Amino acid sequence: MSSIYHGQLTVSIFGQSHAPAIGVTVDGLPAGEPVDLEELQVFLNRRAPGTGNWSTPRKEGDQPEFLSGLSQGRTCGAPLTAVIRNTNTRSGDYADLRDIPRPGHADYTAQVKYGGFQDVAGGGHFSGRLTAPLCIAGGICKQMLARRGIWVGAHIAAIGGIWDRAYDPVALSREDLLAPGRTRFSVLAPEAGERMQAAIAAAKADRDSLGGIIECGVVGLPAGLGDPMLDGMENRIARLAFAIPAVKGVEFGAGFGVAALRGSQNNDPFYMDGGQVKTRTNHAGGILGGITNGMPLVFRVAVKPTPSIAQPQDSVSLSRGENTTLEIHGRHDPCIVPRAVPCVEAAAAIAVCDALLEQQRRSELL
Amino acid sequence: MSSIYHGQLTVSIFGQSHAPAIGVTVDGLPAGEPVDLEELQVFLNRRAPGTGNWSTPRKEGDQPEFLSGLSQGRTCGAPLTAVIRNTNTRSGDYADLRDIPRPGHADYTAQVKYGGFQDVAGGGHFSGRLTAPLCIAGGICKQMLARRGIWVGAHIAAIGGIWDRAYDPVALSREDLLAPGRTRFSVLAPEAGERMQAAIAAAKADRDSLGGIIECGVVGLPAGLGDPMLDGMENRIARLAFAIPAVKGVEFGAGFGVAALRGSQNNDPFYMDGGQVKTRTNHAGGILGGITNGMPLVFRVAVKPTPSIAQPQDSVSLSRGENTTLEIHGRHDPCIVPRAVPCVEAAAAIAVCDALLEQQRRSELL
Amino acid sequence: MSSIYHGQLTVSIFGQSHAPAIGVTVDGLPAGEPVDLEELQVFLNRRAPGTGNWSTPRKEGDQPEFLSGLSQGRTCGAPLTAVIRNTNTRSGDYADLRDIPRPGHADYTAQVKYGGFQDVAGGGHFSGRLTAPLCIAGGICKQMLARRGIWVGAHIAAIGGIWDRAYDPVALSREDLLAPGRTRFSVLAPEAGERMQAAIAAAKADRDSLGGIIECGVVGLPAGLGDPMLDGMENRIARLAFAIPAVKGVEFGAGFGVAALRGSQNNDPFYMDGGQVKTRTNHAGGILGGITNGMPLVFRVAVKPTPSIAQPQDSVSLSRGENTTLEIHGRHDPCIVPRAVPCVEAAAAIAVCDALLEQQRRSELL
Amino acid sequence: MSSIYHGQLTVSIFGQSHAPAIGVTVDGLPAGEPVDLEELQVFLNRRAPGTGNWSTPRKEGDQPEFLSGLSQGRTCGAPLTAVIRNTNTRSGDYADLRDIPRPGHADYTAQVKYGGFQDVAGGGHFSGRLTAPLCIAGGICKQMLARRGIWVGAHIAAIGGIWDRAYDPVALSREDLLAPGRTRFSVLAPEAGERMQAAIAAAKADRDSLGGIIECGVVGLPAGLGDPMLDGMENRIARLAFAIPAVKGVEFGAGFGVAALRGSQNNDPFYMDGGQVKTRTNHAGGILGGITNGMPLVFRVAVKPTPSIAQPQDSVSLSRGENTTLEIHGRHDPCIVPRAVPCVEAAAAIAVCDALLEQQRRSELL
Repeated sequence: MSSIYHGQLTVSIFGQSHAPAIGVTVDGLPAGEPVDLEELQVFLNRRAPGTGNWSTPRKEGDQPEFLSGLSQGRTCGAPLTAVIRNTNTRSGDYADLRDIPRPGHADYTAQVKYGGFQDVAGGGHFSGRLTAPLCIAGGICKQMLARRGIWVGAHIAAIGGIWDRAYDPVALSREDLLAPGRTRFSVLAPEAGERMQAAIAAAKADRDSLGGIIECGVVGLPAGLGDPMLDGMENRIARLAFAIPAVKGVEFGAGFGVAALRGSQNNDPFYMDGGQVKTRTNHAGGILGGITNGMPLVFRVAVKPTPSIAQPQDSVSLSRGENTTLEIHGRHDPCIVPRAVPCVEAAAAIAVCDALLEQQRRSELL
Repeated sequence: MSSIYHGQLTVSIFGQSHAPAIGVTVDGLPAGEPVDLEELQVFLNRRAPGTGNWSTPRKEGDQPEFLSGLSQGRTCGAPLTAVIRNTNTRSGDYADLRDIPRPGHADYTAQVKYGGFQDVAGGGHFSGRLTAPLCIAGGICKQMLARRGIWVGAHIAAIGGIWDRAYDPVALSREDLLAPGRTRFSVLAPEAGERMQAAIAAAKADRDSLGGIIECGVVGLPAGLGDPMLDGMENRIARLAFAIPAVKGVEFGAGFGVAALRGSQNNDPFYMDGGQVKTRTNHAGGILGGITNGMPLVFRVAVKPTPSIAQPQDSVSLSRGENTTLEIHGRHDPCIVPRAVPCVEAAAAIAVCDALLEQQRRSELL
Repeated sequence: MSSIYHGQLTVSIFGQSHAPAIGVTVDGLPAGEPVDLEELQVFLNRRAPGTGNWSTPRKEGDQPEFLSGLSQGRTCGAPLTAVIRNTNTRSGDYADLRDIPRPGHADYTAQVKYGGFQDVAGGGHFSGRLTAPLCIAGGICKQMLARRGIWVGAHIAAIGGIWDRAYDPVALSREDLLAPGRTRFSVLAPEAGERMQAAIAAAKADRDSLGGIIECGVVGLPAGLGDPMLDGMENRIARLAFAIPAVKGVEFGAGFGVAALRGSQNNDPFYMDGGQVKTRTNHAGGILGGITNGMPLVFRVAVKPTPSIAQPQDSVSLSRGENTTLEIHGRHDPCIVPRAVPCVEAAAAIAVCDALLEQQRRSELL
Repeated sequence: MSSIYHGQLTVSIFGQSHAPAIGVTVDGLPAGEPVDLEELQVFLNRRAPGTGNWSTPRKEGDQPEFLSGLSQGRTCGAPLTAVIRNTNTRSGDYADLRDIPRPGHADYTAQVKYGGFQDVAGGGHFSGRLTAPLCIAGGICKQMLARRGIWVGAHIAAIGGIWDRAYDPVALSREDLLAPGRTRFSVLAPEAGERMQAAIAAAKADRDSLGGIIECGVVGLPAGLGDPMLDGMENRIARLAFAIPAVKGVEFGAGFGVAALRGSQNNDPFYMDGGQVKTRTNHAGGILGGITNGMPLVFRVAVKPTPSIAQPQDSVSLSRGENTTLEIHGRHDPCIVPRAVPCVEAAAAIAVCDALLEQQRRSELL
């Protein structure tokens, strides 16, 4: 398998960068859920290129066409499929990638795995473009969650060593989550955003690129979502977050910081707050034993620098079996972190929606 | 679902800490694979308690009984099931956990999810003891991989802010991977290990606990294992690693460090080495586009400090709906990182074995 | 994979006939469901051998031990595992089966699939004994369904060409379903049962065996369970029913009889009955478009004659590559149909419970 | 879930009869497999309407567009998605179906399950039209199998009580399998076909419809495909065959006929034939213990009469809660059996391809 998340929801992603289309099928959505197409488009536009200096000037126009699963603006219980046409198909720009793999890309590993039959144009199925279908599925899940008072948001936590203000994991509000997404550059502290953008511009001027970190939060979650061991919230979210091509790390709550903490520091003390159980700190990131505890769910993902840089790079010719040098042409984002923000939200929204559908089922039967 | 990894191999874990037994079923193993029970026991003993100062003096005796799936010392194609009897069942030590949840544990979330019907004794299905069946499955996978020249190992990368020497991600050898597991305390640099043990002893004296980081590597991997998007090596490993109860983060290669790198630094240049494609650096951790590139696979997990500490902690009484203080008695590891090392190896071995079984299938059909 | 049903419930069956044990893990059961062990034992005893002339005099003693998943007599949310010890393990009776396969058995196909590494003793994982774990899972599901007013039952519809009275698919009552299971020989018409038993005795005297048909019904079902296409009630039930080794056919409602009907005869007209939608006939067997319509669900399975007969049979020596003759010794049921009746009920109960868990989930979210 | 077959291949079907499109995603196909689009179209045309007197004169034009998964005429390893546009969308013909359900259709059960949000136009996701995507997936699998010497075919075994000549389950040849598909009406005995067509014409004249039986065979199969218990060839095929909306029964080999046989008659004696193990009879339908034995695989499915008939039928008004009479207008096949023949082949081809991919994997690892 490659491109299927299989839970209460099955999310099956297909397409290559330069194939006729990319798209997604979501099976298992309850019937009767409204899908606000305008709101979805606003969400997809946050992922689309060409909206800032840090992004490639290519115009993708990620406008989904819904082939099935909707009836009169609502889910109808049948599998929902949406596709986005690729207008820029079969270009000849990528002819050499079967022979000279780009460092940091999947060209070489795809060549080995698929024996040369892979679709190389535009990165094929490995293209970052495949996060658009993920965002369609995630955007629908976000709407379903919002109707139930659950809000998902993310912001750029760091780019090139410059840090945004972090979420307050205890007092995180819906507004904290939604505000960054409304701006051109999704940060909490505008000043940090400006410095990040300057760093991106500097990297671009050097024909180089930058990586970063995205922080994502979910509030309004009931306690009790998720499962122990292999279907915990961490497992579900991590599985989906690593579907975003450039992600190299996922951490929850205090994350790797737990390594420097003592138990007395890391444990989150419980207390009663007006009849509700809460914790005074939130190093757990809202998850205990794989299950939500009702506090904000908080996690971060590490996003590597765009591997496509305009500098000459060392590579090999697979056909000749010798070293060579590669220069990548075309226009590429000097930093994909800003555009990856909604993708991380999508991963979180799908995972939470999946767990919500499962928990609903179990609790009602008692 | 909760406790099933479902791929080419299905690994289904069951049991509670104080139920009659814990165990695992592995479905999908090829027939004819020898299982060296002594070697497996050596591996399981690395996870067992009572072998060092940093560990609880309880004696668990993790000796698996194989109920099915073996015939004359080899896998027979039928599902393999092994169980470990719990000798210490139904103790009364845990009577209050349904009312006063331990901070950092799953007591509260289990209470909400299972409506009070969960088995609380010893942490029930959430106990760290459930990593023993994971290690049975992983130990068998490790043996299968070793016969094919693929070696999996891990070491304690850090405890309480003290760091072991890191793996060399380019020159990582089989010996580097196996050596730490042969010692009482799995580190590469004995001196660092001694300082870590002193830190654990100090935390213990303070009735406190420590967290840490485990680094895991796999060498001898062919290029071409794994899949794009949702079944990449990162997705598979992360899903399994987060099954270890205390894990709060997973990162591959340069991991969260990518956030401070430029593309020109993070990209791993290709070169030919005696007919083989290699990379000069290995920030990718051996994975590009979810697929192995033939370089060592390297990842790290963050392990939180043992939540069970002997200090009084703030908690709540769920029945009375008011704040209270909790003191945890009994003997608990002041640091579970050393015992978690083989669990991380198990997670990696299962993921790699799963991908190997899949790739075998596809490539043979071309 | 081999032995896993993967839906809202995951039922994973393991064991070989002469391995230490056989058993089952059920993952996904709601927490808090009581399991009446005595009632379960009564159900399992219906499958056990040695209770009649038509059955092998071997004594199996199918008493399950619950290793996990129960706490104080109720499901606790963790995976439930039960095992049955095999007392008669590793006998030498089956030494030749690797060389001279028994006609009608899986000896030859297992030899090819598993390359000689399969466990041949007692039929290994292919033994009819593996239906005992299926009955454990099914028996628990039957109890869950009964608490919700849903009743599952089956009877011997035919043996050796002798037919029992058929269910009335429109007026089928709970009592019709439960009555046959209370008797030694599960038929609706005692006189037909006596003739069947005489036919079995005659076949046994001829060192031969008989096949038959089992009819199964479910009443009390709400309309709306199941899914279109690949997860319809027919798909789920058929997948589980064909797990019973001797089953060679499954048909719903009018089944193969539809081939001789016109649409005007086969269509079941709707009518209102005190505010409830019903159909006047029930050729659909209670299923339309894969989904229950509230009428009794009725299906039949064909069970082949026991392949182990005491007559000399033509076979081959795989090692010598030549024809030979085989005589099967030991004691075998001259007809397994009576003992297969609870197995068919188990298959139906698991499928219905699975669909009920799914539907519960979806409908609550609207 | 509804419309996903999840094995080595994942086949995910989507679409409603009058949605913009119907289609299928196949994930898990090996890379490098040629797809002959002309041959596929010939296969799809066998399912298309309008080619005979027994079929509706509507013109559907089932021409798939491949959105992804192909590169230069071959599979590229990425998920393969093909869609067929619905030209006849959103007609008003079906307005009343939400209120007055058609007997024998899923209108009522969909209404209950989806709470009125289902897409009723043209039967929505329950339409027989959804078998077209199944045939796309199956047609590609048939091509993959044919390149490996495995041939799949089917014929009309019976319509309205008139029987075609049956397959010889022992001597079944490739030509027997392929010949019926080349004719306008897929039978082995043309004379029987003429009588069937006359019976269909007579039923049509009476504004009625006919059901039938389809027999399917696979030759060239290696022994060793499939699994015991829940993933046997019977389980896989049955699960896929019941995805065809009108199928109400599936039987293998002697099928329900086993009920009248003794073991000595039903067992298939083994013999050596030029170094190959064969059976003299084939009541097993080529499957023992869920696994192929190298003999032809033979099964039959029962297809109910088209429920849409032009006669007035009794139904109910759901809104008014009272009995009423329904007349179905529009053009419908008086017998869908002929068009269902390639659908049954598709189900078989997918199941066999899935098992082949799995077995390939396991055997290579020994």
